[in-house]
Amino acid sequence: MSLKLDSVSTLLNEPDAAPVHSVTLFVALVSACIVIGHLLQKTRWMNQSVTALAFGLCTATVIILTTNGKISDILLFDEDLFFICLLPPIIFNAGFQVKKKQFFQNFIIINLFGVVGTLISFGIISIVQFAWCFAHTYKMLYVNAYRLFWWQVDLSSLGAILSATDTVCTLQVLNQEDTPLLYSLVFGEGVVNDATSIVLFNAIQKFSVHVTPDTVMQFTGSFLYLFSLSTLLGIAVGLMSAYIIRKLYFGRHSTDREVALMILMAYLSYVMADLFQLSGILTVFFCGIVMSHYTWHNITESSRVTTKHTFATLSFISETFIFLYVGMDALDMEKWKIVKGSPGTSVAVSSTLLGLVLVGRAASVFSVSFLSNLANDSPIDKIGFKQQVTIWWAGLMRGAVSVALAYNKFTSSGHTQRPKNAIMITSTITIVLFSNVVFGLLTKPLVRLMLQPREESSEISSPKSSSALLPLLANGQDLASELDSVGGGISIRRPSSLTMLITKPTSTVHYYWRKFDNAVMRPIFGGGGEESPPNDILH
Amino acid sequence: MSLKLDSVSTLLNEPDAAPVHSVTLFVALVSACIVIGHLLQKTRWMNQSVTALAFGLCTATVIILTTNGKISDILLFDEDLFFICLLPPIIFNAGFQVKKKQFFQNFIIINLFGVVGTLISFGIISIVQFAWCFAHTYKMLYVNAYRLFWWQVDLSSLGAILSATDTVCTLQVLNQEDTPLLYSLVFGEGVVNDATSIVLFNAIQKFSVHVTPDTVMQFTGSFLYLFSLSTLLGIAVGLMSAYIIRKLYFGRHSTDREVALMILMAYLSYVMADLFQLSGILTVFFCGIVMSHYTWHNITESSRVTTKHTFATLSFISETFIFLYVGMDALDMEKWKIVKGSPGTSVAVSSTLLGLVLVGRAASVFSVSFLSNLANDSPIDKIGFKQQVTIWWAGLMRGAVSVALAYNKFTSSGHTQRPKNAIMITSTITIVLFSNVVFGLLTKPLVRLMLQPREESSEISSPKSSSALLPLLANGQDLASELDSVGGGISIRRPSSLTMLITKPTSTVHYYWRKFDNAVMRPIFGGGGEESPPNDILH
Repeated sequence: MSLKLDSVSTLLNEPDAAPVHSVTLFVALVSACIVIGHLLQKTRWMNQSVTALAFGLCTATVIILTTNGKISDILLFDEDLFFICLLPPIIFNAGFQVKKKQFFQNFIIINLFGVVGTLISFGIISIVQFAWCFAHTYKMLYVNAYRLFWWQVDLSSLGAILSATDTVCTLQVLNQEDTPLLYSLVFGEGVVNDATSIVLFNAIQKFSVHVTPDTVMQFTGSFLYLFSLSTLLGIAVGLMSAYIIRKLYFGRHSTDREVALMILMAYLSYVMADLFQLSGILTVFFCGIVMSHYTWHNITESSRVTTKHTFATLSFISETFIFLYVGMDALDMEKWKIVKGSPGTSVAVSSTLLGLVLVGRAASVFSVSFLSNLANDSPIDKIGFKQQVTIWWAGLMRGAVSVALAYNKFTSSGHTQRPKNAIMITSTITIVLFSNVVFGLLTKPLVRLMLQPREESSEISSPKSSSALLPLLANGQDLASELDSVGGGISIRRPSSLTMLITKPTSTVHYYWRKFDNAVMRPIFGGGGEESPPNDILH
Repeated sequence: MSLKLDSVSTLLNEPDAAPVHSVTLFVALVSACIVIGHLLQKTRWMNQSVTALAFGLCTATVIILTTNGKISDILLFDEDLFFICLLPPIIFNAGFQVKKKQFFQNFIIINLFGVVGTLISFGIISIVQFAWCFAHTYKMLYVNAYRLFWWQVDLSSLGAILSATDTVCTLQVLNQEDTPLLYSLVFGEGVVNDATSIVLFNAIQKFSVHVTPDTVMQFTGSFLYLFSLSTLLGIAVGLMSAYIIRKLYFGRHSTDREVALMILMAYLSYVMADLFQLSGILTVFFCGIVMSHYTWHNITESSRVTTKHTFATLSFISETFIFLYVGMDALDMEKWKIVKGSPGTSVAVSSTLLGLVLVGRAASVFSVSFLSNLANDSPIDKIGFKQQVTIWWAGLMRGAVSVALAYNKFTSSGHTQRPKNAIMITSTITIVLFSNVVFGLLTKPLVRLMLQPREESSEISSPKSSSALLPLLANGQDLASELDSVGGGISIRRPSSLTMLITKPTSTVHYYWRKFDNAVMRPIFGGGGEESPPNDILH
């Protein structure tokens, strides 16, 4: 094979003349990361993300020192690789393994956090940027309208880029079993936030930024269109996979066919969404939910074990790879050389933006929580201050989506020569690195500090730790109590059906959905008689 | 995401402006192939390979008709994709799932078939080509030495390309449980043959073709060097994975880490071999054997199920994809347009080469079998005629390795304008298509015809169908009879230890290996007390 790789690269005269070198390097590094991450798991501060980031930084340093900064192409972040290969398994696995009940019970508040929260954060970051720039460089007012317009697009794009949170770090610390509700809130918000910020970013590139009622309407319309169609596509592909596997009884002949079909159709939903210019993230997420709800129940026992662990493993590898990659990319010398001339500006921009991220996130989380608490009268349904702080903290980290969007906006296939763009890129990378390393290291102690007293107090209202957080948030009730295990202290407050629909819309929808699911959907698409999420077996 | 893909391709101005289109198309087609292949499984003639080939041809026809032959870039075979992504999972899984005992007991004869047989086939194809060309174009003798040399290199390369067999088609029909020995012979020969022909191809590009004793020595030396070093690398990486997982007890924390580490280290062995200019195929094959022998026993129960099925699924997807790909590539118009002017030459060359393939394969299989039968006195150890025919047939198909090597030699990143090269490419594709479709369709009936009487007759010598073929070939005895289940009629002929080493070297090596394995290797690298191959569980 060596013959082929060498001769091919010689033939093509590509700049990356040694693909196999970088592949070997990355595979070896990810393996090493996994082993080191395992060894460091017991420590108080480290987690897999920070380990991978640190590993990436160290490797990049070694490469730069040994090659005098020549082979910096290996270090370059490739957004195509990120969006086509690395992101889909992570999001699909998220949908596949999420506790569906908690997720849908909190659907409204998750969307409030994910959509409204992201928009608030985006608005604050963008507006403050505008204000700051106008105040400091008021001469800009006299430049021509064309430049002003592009400048606005750049700043708004940066606002969208910095609104894309990365909750992986916090999710690694939160335990889905111990704090199912907080987990599903942080996690659900993370997924919706990714989709929102990408859609927002997309919209900014298309529309003019002169905000008129017309553009707002247009934006809202395209936003809703994308959200609903992406979701529907994911559900449709998921149902199709369930139907095919149920009708053809693949398991009779071959486990491999079933597993292959599930993997391929999951990926198909993602690339189809891309093809139709929809949000692949939302599509593959809902495809994962449908597959775990229907398809997964139609396959053989060994296929179930295999799919569950295969999806988790692929997601795990992708996550580790991404952090490693971001770490390595951070030391790509090219862009740092450009901003070297103005270190003061660079530091000022980065720290201002970091401050804006903190403030924007605080504004969005606390205001949405305040709204949610206003709508709930009973003190037991309110989001406590410590929960708010945890949710705020979970969204402080900025990750690979930010880096990928920044590269998309401010570089031409990974390269840039313009100082302004270089500053945008280096600021984004600085924020990603700083937030992940500094905030990431603090996450484990902070989350423990925040959640420990809460767990103790919650034992008063519910004897089961798995439903410990249920009373803390709105819609924490499951009215289909025969399918649930919520403490009796709550389910006795059962109002009439009509009152229910008005006061607890999500729970009611959930109740009728279960009825519909059992009567119509499961006979067609399969699925067990009782709720048995993938997390239950062999774990 | 759509934003990114579009803008990236616009930025790069790449010829393949729509990667997501072709990805979607391929994922959808592979899914469809799997479903159709499942539905056609019961039929007498079709198998998965032929289904995928036919699907590829149909799709290519539709694409060409709907786009007037414009988007032919989608159809182009990408050798990088083949060697870096598609081949490794197939070969690794082969090593992982092979019945190790049968494989190693027949190690010598497998290598005879794989190495000597391939060299005989290569020699016949090349020499007849030389003779034919000299006879028909004797003017060539008067052209300058330089052109003559390149012409020799081309013809020898074609000889090597057409010596790479594709046994997938036959293996899909043969049953590892019913005919373990024939399976391991056909299968083992396939792997060794792949490696041999690639090494041969590689060597031809490097050496001059003027055959002197010196070049023969050099060639033999580099051949042995490659074989031994590749094998050792595979074993080393496999043992490393076993040691790491055993020492760190990954299962305690996470199944996903174990599975991820196994996948990554398997792939690492392949890319490392490429990096060191070794044969990745041999390396990853032996890595698979070592992993299934040691590493697989150190992981948790759910990891075992997962790895077994994940590797099989990845291999299955890759195989289907390759056949689909070869089918689609066959209708790439560019190269057919060049040879359109001389249809007579094209047909003559293709059918001559096809004839040579048949004769070369026959010569190699029957002569090696004859040699093997000469060395064995007892009639029960001889390879029967029907077995010889089955082995001959199994190696008639030419597959993706041939196509990939042909592209590597005769095109520049998939394109060619020279008529001579175009004829080489189209002939290779014609042979691949013809052999797979025509011979492939006949494989199921032929193998059944050949094996049915044999299975009945073999029941006389052995009551167990799983060892039915053991007496038919040399070294079919397992002297470590406490570990085996060979019929008593054979194992009573037990000679003394020294006689054993001379007459039955493989069995003796196997016996001492088992002793060493149990005493030294297993305490360090893990592994069950008794033989328990991955095939045993949950199937």
